[in-house]
Amino acid sequence: MQGLMQDWPLTLNRVIEHANQWHPDQEVVSRLVEGPIVRTTYAEIYKRSKKLSNALLAAGVKMGDRIATMGWNNARHLECWYGIMGIGAVCHTLNPRLFAEQLCYIINHAEDSIIFTDLSFVEMLAKNAPDLPTVKKWIVLTDPAGMAGCPLPNAIDYESFIAGHSENVEWGNFDENTAAGLCYTSGTTGNPKGVLYSHRSNFLHSLVGISPSMFSLSDKDVLLPVVPLFHANAWGLAFNCPAVGAKMVMPGPKLDGASLYELMETEGVTYSAGVPTVWQMLLQHMDTNNLKFSTLKFLVVGGSALPEGLLRGFHDRYGIEIMAAWGMTETSPLATAVRLTPEQLKLPYEEQVPLRLKAGRPPLGVELKVVDDDGATLPNDGASVGRLMVKGAYVLRRYFKAEDKEILDAEGFFDTGDVATLDEHGFVTITDRAKDVIKSGGEWISSIEIENLAASHPKSLIACVVACPHPKWDERPLLLVKLKEGESATREEYLKYLDGKIAKWWMPDDVLFVDDIPLGATGKLDKKVIRVAYKDHKLPTI
Amino acid sequence: MQGLMQDWPLTLNRVIEHANQWHPDQEVVSRLVEGPIVRTTYAEIYKRSKKLSNALLAAGVKMGDRIATMGWNNARHLECWYGIMGIGAVCHTLNPRLFAEQLCYIINHAEDSIIFTDLSFVEMLAKNAPDLPTVKKWIVLTDPAGMAGCPLPNAIDYESFIAGHSENVEWGNFDENTAAGLCYTSGTTGNPKGVLYSHRSNFLHSLVGISPSMFSLSDKDVLLPVVPLFHANAWGLAFNCPAVGAKMVMPGPKLDGASLYELMETEGVTYSAGVPTVWQMLLQHMDTNNLKFSTLKFLVVGGSALPEGLLRGFHDRYGIEIMAAWGMTETSPLATAVRLTPEQLKLPYEEQVPLRLKAGRPPLGVELKVVDDDGATLPNDGASVGRLMVKGAYVLRRYFKAEDKEILDAEGFFDTGDVATLDEHGFVTITDRAKDVIKSGGEWISSIEIENLAASHPKSLIACVVACPHPKWDERPLLLVKLKEGESATREEYLKYLDGKIAKWWMPDDVLFVDDIPLGATGKLDKKVIRVAYKDHKLPTI
Repeated sequence: MQGLMQDWPLTLNRVIEHANQWHPDQEVVSRLVEGPIVRTTYAEIYKRSKKLSNALLAAGVKMGDRIATMGWNNARHLECWYGIMGIGAVCHTLNPRLFAEQLCYIINHAEDSIIFTDLSFVEMLAKNAPDLPTVKKWIVLTDPAGMAGCPLPNAIDYESFIAGHSENVEWGNFDENTAAGLCYTSGTTGNPKGVLYSHRSNFLHSLVGISPSMFSLSDKDVLLPVVPLFHANAWGLAFNCPAVGAKMVMPGPKLDGASLYELMETEGVTYSAGVPTVWQMLLQHMDTNNLKFSTLKFLVVGGSALPEGLLRGFHDRYGIEIMAAWGMTETSPLATAVRLTPEQLKLPYEEQVPLRLKAGRPPLGVELKVVDDDGATLPNDGASVGRLMVKGAYVLRRYFKAEDKEILDAEGFFDTGDVATLDEHGFVTITDRAKDVIKSGGEWISSIEIENLAASHPKSLIACVVACPHPKWDERPLLLVKLKEGESATREEYLKYLDGKIAKWWMPDDVLFVDDIPLGATGKLDKKVIRVAYKDHKLPTI
Repeated sequence: MQGLMQDWPLTLNRVIEHANQWHPDQEVVSRLVEGPIVRTTYAEIYKRSKKLSNALLAAGVKMGDRIATMGWNNARHLECWYGIMGIGAVCHTLNPRLFAEQLCYIINHAEDSIIFTDLSFVEMLAKNAPDLPTVKKWIVLTDPAGMAGCPLPNAIDYESFIAGHSENVEWGNFDENTAAGLCYTSGTTGNPKGVLYSHRSNFLHSLVGISPSMFSLSDKDVLLPVVPLFHANAWGLAFNCPAVGAKMVMPGPKLDGASLYELMETEGVTYSAGVPTVWQMLLQHMDTNNLKFSTLKFLVVGGSALPEGLLRGFHDRYGIEIMAAWGMTETSPLATAVRLTPEQLKLPYEEQVPLRLKAGRPPLGVELKVVDDDGATLPNDGASVGRLMVKGAYVLRRYFKAEDKEILDAEGFFDTGDVATLDEHGFVTITDRAKDVIKSGGEWISSIEIENLAASHPKSLIACVVACPHPKWDERPLLLVKLKEGESATREEYLKYLDGKIAKWWMPDDVLFVDDIPLGATGKLDKKVIRVAYKDHKLPTI
């Protein structure tokens, strides 16, 4: 027997429609690539998104077509999202930080027919345009004046593109499982892979995201999303803010401490979200210039683990709460957030610190488990280390154009590629990437934990731990250290430094001092290359 | 093109599964009908609900079967909800405050095959059992000791019913549109009508309900739901609390001020929700006994309008915030809540008071409009009075067993039967029930506003305003007053009292002093009867 409630598909046009109807005058403030700060409202964004939809329809765009954007956080970019998704086309966000080769691969794989781009990227795109045969149209997120000298062939400015189009267009009225957004994972192994979000998944991600278990958002918040619209679905903020009528402050390309601080102060920002690097820059700017925040209260950190110094710096010196959250492109991304339990909140702050450095716990809507190598579920005891698996309404089922490739386990869980523990409350502690974990005698050793310790040695510039083949134990840890300029050290010195800080059987079998350690495109240790380089290294323990 | 996200149906078993997994030891405290206060946890409720599911399956229950409950708020009743819904049967909540005749109609209409009942109702049910041919089994929410002298034929106690059954049973794994709950509106006209909630509608209602725009719930809240599980889907609280892991404190049958205060204090209640009458009783108990709340911070009031004295009493004397919310059985029920805008919150409290007495504004997920008699949408200007219409993911489409009867307008909106204004922020002000509004010369006069004023006259015991036929204006207001014992008054005295407080053309055409004013089953003015009684009254203005 079916219930007798209304058929009200969860399509994303409803989000901006809600903002337009009940929060029409709420501001969206943007710093443009050209420099100035411009102000608009949800009502204006709604109307201009509709004009954009008509312009796209007039250009022949059909449901399911992939329309790409390569833009910073600004109001025009937000209009692209709603204008594209409203008519059932797919908004494909391009990460301009990728290498040109990867970008071309992604654009060709997605078969993007139109690309919206900020002025920052026109030269790079012009250079690669000949290798992008599917792209029929380039639209630059600027006005006619901004187009002077634009090197893109047949490009048109955004304002001219939407000019003269009607504000009336039908949005939604299609299946809520219709594809809405496309985002590729940068992928440290193999080619980038596309995650194809649906209207339903993003809508549900938004309802969960605004709840007190996660972001806890309302129209009282003035939100500055530092996390870019092209990064992991912008953590849902492009939907969450209009969904609750929160003011948005869009930083454009300027993410340095001084620029962010200025925007926060002039626009009364209370809430912001971004990666640790950005908050490190902001903290340094605050410390160096002896500044105070007038309105900021809350920061979300994601993308990588929250460093203790960052948590303490903002908390101790500025009274700002930082909440770590965890997820990945494949999980829309919000899988967990650090919301302490009522009992944990009663602890002295010092005892809360280690809890606040965890990756958080899941809300209703996200299922988690850790499993061993055979896929058997491990206990949620905060100690059993296994692969972190995730399942839920906004977790991917298949990668784009790889629909025939099964990637879920028998229970429907997706393998995050992380190695973690889960405690009784659901708090995740990520100990390693699965491909970097060292498997010694059937047990797992966290490469990250050892290298973080080694990196904290006063003589270290960079430290890296990788698995090295071992005839008896399969793999044993090898520690590579790049010392600071002018320093020298011994193997024994480092082993002694680690002694007592990690389990005996985690101790690296060897320590090598090297001139350089290879880093990947995003500045992370390129362990794949490092493992290959040292696979024949003969450990002294063999 | 479809998105490639997981198929994760929004079924309600996931709610208690989430609570069981990550909040297993969170308490649910209940006051039993028998008197004592008992404690259990979400983990226990989860396990016992599964046993109940197996007991129901063993009794031959199939998907879609209607299984009724007539119970107070307690843990066993909660187990019934999850045990019934988990296997795709329909949990039909019976309101014991209805007249026996209505109850029999409802049970027969729903074709309930099993009824779970608290001890409080066994006599009444036993008396009516012969008129309830579809009911095959009676299960009393007690243990074997509680069954002594139970007059119900072939009844079994709950503990014996679930004893010996396994905790393993498959839940969910069906279409999220499967019927989950059934609740009848008491219906002042015609027979009660059934609203058939789906798993999806209740799940979405819960996600919206816990958001900061509505209840704003987390595991930091200790919630005492005074609103009964049998009243309008319990405002969603039976799902919201386990969804976030909030402690629940279930008051059982004792809703007087002293009993509620005692529970709030002993259990550390921070948050409660109920109708104004209950809060009036609690306020009076506090005032009379010169008490203080140790932990209570927040009250939700719904079911009828928030009286100013209640708002001020709790705010001024106890520092408790009261939030009004509005909805109806047909809207699951949470359609609006009074969450002031950031600008409104900056106003002095005196200026906030009239805003806080409104019915609230809608979250994302609920669409509202006011329409005139022709169905044309009126402006959201806070002044245009029209029928309040609602649409959304958890608003009904059809009544149960009336699937062939269209009840939505061309745009898919449901007519609430209320007359209201909507302002620019979406704040609803309900001015009347549509059937009670007085239509004078094409304009609408609020009967409620006039009678509330007349009731505030020092000599009034009860006042009532109804429409009286008028040859020129169609209808004109007629004021009926029942004076306090020993008082006498004149027509002119009352008209003078109203003069200047309402628009000139709203002034009643006549005032009658009567010995009695008919009240309906729920203590409200029975205007249908009153209108008929005075339809031939000759107004002096004719």
